[in-house]
Order: sequence, then C-alpha cells, then structure tokens
Amino acid sequence: MYEIKEHLENRNDGKGNGVLYIGGVSTLELAEKYGTPLYVYDEQTIRNRYRKLVSTFLKYYPKFKCFYAVKANNNLAVLKILKEEGAGLDCSCPAEIYLAEKAGFSKDKMLYSGVYHTNAELEFGVKAGITLNLEDVSQMDRLVAVCKRLNKWPEVLSFRINPGMGKGSVAGNVFGGKDAKFGVIEDQAVLAFKKAQEAGFKKFGIHMMTGSCVLDSTYFEAVTSKLLDICGAIRKELGIKFEFVDIGGGFGVAYLPGEKDLDLDYVVQKVAKVFAEKVVKYDLGDPELKIEPGRYITCESGILLTRVHSIKNGYKRFVGVDAGMNTLLRPALYNAYHEIYVANKLNDHLLTNETSKKSPVMMSDKEKQKLGWEKVNICGQICENTDQFAKDKFLPHIEEGDLLVLLNAGSYGFAMGSQYNNRPMCAEVLVNHGITKSTHELIRKRQGFEDLSKDMVVPRRLKSGWLF
Amino acid sequence: MYEIKEHLENRNDGKGNGVLYIGGVSTLELAEKYGTPLYVYDEQTIRNRYRKLVSTFLKYYPKFKCFYAVKANNNLAVLKILKEEGAGLDCSCPAEIYLAEKAGFSKDKMLYSGVYHTNAELEFGVKAGITLNLEDVSQMDRLVAVCKRLNKWPEVLSFRINPGMGKGSVAGNVFGGKDAKFGVIEDQAVLAFKKAQEAGFKKFGIHMMTGSCVLDSTYFEAVTSKLLDICGAIRKELGIKFEFVDIGGGFGVAYLPGEKDLDLDYVVQKVAKVFAEKVVKYDLGDPELKIEPGRYITCESGILLTRVHSIKNGYKRFVGVDAGMNTLLRPALYNAYHEIYVANKLNDHLLTNETSKKSPVMMSDKEKQKLGWEKVNICGQICENTDQFAKDKFLPHIEEGDLLVLLNAGSYGFAMGSQYNNRPMCAEVLVNHGITKSTHELIRKRQGFEDLSKDMVVPRRLKSGWLF
Repeated sequence: MYEIKEHLENRNDGKGNGVLYIGGVSTLELAEKYGTPLYVYDEQTIRNRYRKLVSTFLKYYPKFKCFYAVKANNNLAVLKILKEEGAGLDCSCPAEIYLAEKAGFSKDKMLYSGVYHTNAELEFGVKAGITLNLEDVSQMDRLVAVCKRLNKWPEVLSFRINPGMGKGSVAGNVFGGKDAKFGVIEDQAVLAFKKAQEAGFKKFGIHMMTGSCVLDSTYFEAVTSKLLDICGAIRKELGIKFEFVDIGGGFGVAYLPGEKDLDLDYVVQKVAKVFAEKVVKYDLGDPELKIEPGRYITCESGILLTRVHSIKNGYKRFVGVDAGMNTLLRPALYNAYHEIYVANKLNDHLLTNETSKKSPVMMSDKEKQKLGWEKVNICGQICENTDQFAKDKFLPHIEEGDLLVLLNAGSYGFAMGSQYNNRPMCAEVLVNHGITKSTHELIRKRQGFEDLSKDMVVPRRLKSGWLF
Repeated sequence: MYEIKEHLENRNDGKGNGVLYIGGVSTLELAEKYGTPLYVYDEQTIRNRYRKLVSTFLKYYPKFKCFYAVKANNNLAVLKILKEEGAGLDCSCPAEIYLAEKAGFSKDKMLYSGVYHTNAELEFGVKAGITLNLEDVSQMDRLVAVCKRLNKWPEVLSFRINPGMGKGSVAGNVFGGKDAKFGVIEDQAVLAFKKAQEAGFKKFGIHMMTGSCVLDSTYFEAVTSKLLDICGAIRKELGIKFEFVDIGGGFGVAYLPGEKDLDLDYVVQKVAKVFAEKVVKYDLGDPELKIEPGRYITCESGILLTRVHSIKNGYKRFVGVDAGMNTLLRPALYNAYHEIYVANKLNDHLLTNETSKKSPVMMSDKEKQKLGWEKVNICGQICENTDQFAKDKFLPHIEEGDLLVLLNAGSYGFAMGSQYNNRPMCAEVLVNHGITKSTHELIRKRQGFEDLSKDMVVPRRLKSGWLF
C-alpha cells in the first residue's frame, strides 16, 4: 500500500471494502474487542527496527551497543521484547530504572541519563550501581557528596556534552547548541572530567544527545566528529581514554507524506568511519560506540485506532473521534503530522488516478477532490479548539461509525498522554504476526472512572459538610 | 506585595528573608512536609472568587445559576467546597458526572455539555437524568434512538450554539466562530430546535461557550446579545420559550505582569442589561441565566511549588527545577506565562527602586539588572527543550535548594498533567486560613513508581522468555 509500512496490509472484506490489518490482525476486530481509542503495536516491527539499527552499526563498527530510550514507549511488554533482542535501556529518571528492573534488565544493560539531577536521584542512581551521565560540572560535587555518604561509587562515570550543535524536526526540540538546556558546554568539558579525575574516578564515558527525529543524513557524522574532537581535547589535557562514546539518538522517522526515510546505511557508515579515524587520531583507547534511540525503534510499530462518533457539517465538516490531545498530544503540542486513514475503507484511499499513478497521499488537494474526497477537520472530544488531529485535510468520505487510524504512533504517543478533561487513559495492545496464526494481547488495561479519583483524599470536614 | 494576590503574603523569617505564605501557611513548610513539585490551593480564594462572581450576577440578574467547569480542576475537595457554596457543575463527559456524584451533587446541579457525544455517552447522560447539551443537529437522531431504547427522556434539552464569534487568550483556543469545532452554527439553530420539538421535547435550554480567558470587558455583552438574537429567531419560528440561557464561561484571569483583571461588575451589568432587554423584546419567557466558569473560580487560588536542584552556567544560566511540562503543560503548549517568584527570597523581589517606585515585576530588564537580578531559563527535567517555564527571564539570584513558585496554577494545571518521561503525578494540598490557626491538608497523594506500571499487563510468553 502506498505510504504504508510492511506490517500494515489492506485486506478485502468480501464486500468491496479494504480493511487495515496490523501484524496480520484486523483493526476492526481489535477496535471491537478492546474498544477505542486504542494503541496497537506490532511486535515484529519493533524487533525489525531494532535489528536493522543494530546490524547496520555492527556491520561498520563491531564494538557497539544500543540502549533503547524508555521514555519513547515505556510499556513493559515492549521493554521485554527489546530485552529478548539484547538491547540495553537508556533511563532518564529513577522510575525508568524501576521499569528496567521490572522488565528484568541487568545493571550493565542500563544507562542513567537524567536531566538536572536532584540529590535523591543521584543517590538512587549510585545505589542502583549503574553508569551515570552527569550533565553539568556543578553536579560533580553533589555526586561526590552522595557517594561519600553511601560509601559507594559508580564504576564508570560519564558526562553528557552539549557539543554546540543540534537539530530537530520541531524548533523547540533541538537538544544541542546555544539554546539547549542540556549538557556540559564544550568550554567546560575538560574541566568536568578534570573534576571527576580529582574526585578519584578512573573509568570514563562520554555522551551527547543533540537531536530529535533528524532526517538529514549528513548530521550524524558531523556531530559525532565534533564530540570526538572534544574527546581528543580531554585526552590531550587529562590523559583520559574512554570506555564508551555515546552519540545518543535522534535517528529520524518519516512522518510526512513523501518524506524520505533516513538512509541508515549511509549514516552509520559515515559515523563509523569518522569514529574509527578519530579514535586512532586522538589515541582514545578502544571505546564502545553507544547509541540511545527511542523513536527509531518503536514509532512505526504503533498505530492509534479511534472511532468516528459524531460528524458535524457546520462552517466546516468536523469529524469527531474518541481520541484527542489527551490520547496523542503531538499534533496539538508540535503541530506534528500523523497520517490518517479510514481503516475500514482502505480501498477508497487506494483509488488510483490512472493518469497520474501517484499515491493518493501524494496527490494535490485538487486531485483528491476529483476522486470525491472531502475536506475535513479531525477533532477530539477535549474542550479545546487545539484538539484537532488534522485541519482542512482531504480524506475519502467518512461516516459515523468509521474507524480511523493514525500512523507512526508507537513513540511519544501513549507516553505523553494524560487524563485531561477527565478522560481515563486508553488501552494498549500488542499484535504478533505468526506463521499459522497472528495473536493480539492486551498489554495495558483501559482505565476506568475510579482511576481519576484514586489518589484524591477528601478532608473529613468537607466530607461531613460541617460548615453548612 | 506587588502583583501578588491577597491570599499570598510575604513574611519575614527573622533572618532577613521574605518567605511566601499561602492562606497563612509557609510554602517552605509545605514543600518540606509534602515534597515538590506540589500544587497548593487556597480554600478561601476559591470561595471568594465563586462568591464574587455569583454575588455580582445576582445583583444585576437574580434568576441566575453558576455551574463550575469540572475540567479546570477536578479535585473532589475543590468540588466539595463549591458544593458548600451552592454551585452547580458543568460536566464535559461521563467521568465528570461520576466525580460530581462522588462529590454529592444532585442531578439538578449538573449540566452535561459534551463534545462530539458518542452513543454510549448520550446513554450515560440520559440514564443520569441530567440536562443535556447537544452540539449538533445530527446528534438529535442518535439521542432519540437512545431515549427510545431506554424509555427515558431528559426533561430539559439544550443545544450548544456557535454564535459565529469567539475570543481567547491563545489563538488555538477560540471556541466560537468559523474555525471552532464546537456547537450548532447559527444557520442550523432553528432546525436543531425544530427537530427536538418534532421528537417530542417540550422544555428547552440554550447554551454557548465561545471564549477562553477573555479579558475584553465588551466581549461578553456582544456575544450574549448575539445568542439572544438567535433565541429570538427560534422563538419566532418555533414558539419556544427557554428554561435557561447559558452564556458559558471564558471570564478571564490576568496572567501577565500589568495585565488588568476583568472588570466583572461592568461585564455583568452590561450582560444582564442586554439579557433582560432581549428576553422582553423576543418574549422569551423567564429564563434562568446560567454561566459555566472554570478558570475564574480556581485559577488564582492555586500555586505550583517547585524546588531548584541543579543550576548550570553554560551558554545561559539554566535553573533546573523538579516540575516540568509533565506537571504544568501550559507554557510548553500555549507559550503561556506564569509569574515566578523565589518563595524563600521574596524580599529580593521587593527591593524597590526608590526613584521609580515601580513594582519590580513591571520594571524593564535594564532596571532589574541594576538591582542585581540575573537572566535565567527555568527548566524542567523532561528530555525536551520545550520543557522550560521561562526563557531569558530576570529574577533575583537563585541558588540550588531555593523554592520557586508559579502563580495562577489552580486551573488547567494538574488537570493537564501527565506521567511523561515516567514522572509520577505530583501531590495537591489545600490550605485554609483560620482565625486562630491556618490548616493544610493533603487532597491528592503523590504517585509512586508503581503507578506507572499498574495498568500494564505482560503477556506470559514474554514473562517466561520462551523465545530465547
């Protein structure tokens, strides 16, 4: 199917309708069984994306480890799948270390890369006995105080560096450069490691995380080169060699129609080349090359299913669905684009314009109109006008009861969800394409009303109403 | 104190520091006892704001009812307080009806104003026996089908109208006019009520909700007038009189320094005048005037306390705190402004420039610099660069361990919070200024790590790891 990935198929229902299947399972059946809104992840896609990334890196740089960023999709089933694949985990806070432990990861398979660490968090990290990434010189003194108090020291210490450059698909989400809140700036990198040496640390790593969803294939080589130059300066000044160099994540996923996937082979080849060259040039030892991808591994595996319940023909044609900014925040927050299909009418999407032979998704609005598509706004049920997944978008004729699907929802989807407008959190399902039979399993229960009030405590005087 | 409301005081700690008190309770004590980040609400302010609104309306239009919008702040303690005050509740979904019932509200004290109602939601509303607001003509047939199936009919039926105009403090949050997803458009208003009449409904209300945080005091009269003109057309065409006319909420709160509070007396006087005139002019009966404010009642009562844990002097001075876009989303989502003070150094904020006698908040950056204030970015711990409460903001010298406070956090604060980056939800506390002793009570428990995974289900085959 045009613009749709391999784990998604269009199957005819025998009545002339095309139905979307994910991992061999009908989305109509999933919506019926588990209700909507519903996040669905395809297990094989998670495995395939992980394997693609890792095998490409191993091809060009064998001393390599991949740490999945838990924050992208924290479901324990997803973590377990990645554990089976041999992944490590990048944890951004103590709770993610808790989840990693719950998923059975060993300490050597975790990195703790927090932001603006509190003392309690540093203590948690030291007690857990995992490799810590500090992200400022000033955090060194606090770490040392914690280690002395606990009489326990991390074996390997790492600093997150802001190498002075960054890139992102969203203006607000550039993680490196002058406006970024993250990391030790280049000018202070030597000082940071010097303080660590003085504090008695002997083994070191270095880390950066500068971009988010970068599709520019030249970027990764450039920023890796920059980080290694910083390593070179540290080596020269302090004699330090590195156990690992962690170049972070940011490997982009194509969300927009016609947007090209990252040329991973090219990226990794270039990164590995500059990495190997500069390790030799600066005599950095034999560091492991680490990466911390989140989105690249889980994004494409996931879809969000949402039912059309109410259509209004007012100033515009407003299609009301049961997912909203509470379910998937990215469109409201970043104006992010998620491709939308009518899951029970896929054939309508595939009516090809024989003369153009273009993918309908790539057609102009005028061409779409010729096919009978209609201009609609896809709206959630939240009492905000920002709560719209698409505005003035041409889609095949939609009716109440139809099932819509939003693609690329496996990362930063459920993870950014909320109970806003008192909507309980939705469910998550894992599908797995089998040779004889495909399976689907609930991996997160749908919340109920009681989940909204479960943490509330009503003071007794208000309970008994003594004031009136 | 300049720019700070009456429930907030600066008290000297005897060591030359000014400490912020809320409702007579030290914010330092609250942060110590309940931890941070922490939402704190002042009970008296909630009561005062409610009373101010209601007494002003009653002064100019005695047949009046106020329905608080649960979505702004859903805490049961807050709802109980408003119940004691005699408020009704505006519920936007079944879960809010559940909360209203839990707080002890009777059915006549609830309105159900949902958006893009599903059939299940309509059924819930009908079963609950409360007044329903439909918001499209097309929802009528579905409602009738539900009522027939249940053999139960709402006594009063109302439609939400989009009167073709709207206003908001944020571009995305204009709830009326051509781009708004809400309500029955003017051209279809008569048709909607006609269909309701034909379906057998006898008693009617009418409703709108067109703005969000409107500070323009001329707006409310204009939009009320518009709605009543629509009522007039309905009266003329269909002979309908109205049990109530609900003009919604949108009563603005001043967030920005120097921004003027809404002139409520003026607004209500004008609204009541045009209301009374047009009720007579169009012979609309003796409708109750209803409003549905959220923010106006709870916003100012609330503050968000957050601890400074890590300060970086990199390209900028980045002040890292333990609240973030997960705790308070408005700055990241709307670029919303929340005034920030150093709660344990209020005297530093109050150093007046004797020559200018200006409030420090109102001073220019140059003047602030002269007082020794520093330019800082206030950052949360989420791994996004969008996660900053303020950028390039001048504040008195801040050190690690300081306690910051964000004002006007009582509405759409906790309500929009999430567990993003696997940060458990924070706690909420209610303070109450007593004559002899002020009290503070936990009204929402801080979540723990287990709250992140409580709904997850790990498939057995992944648990046992049979694949490897």
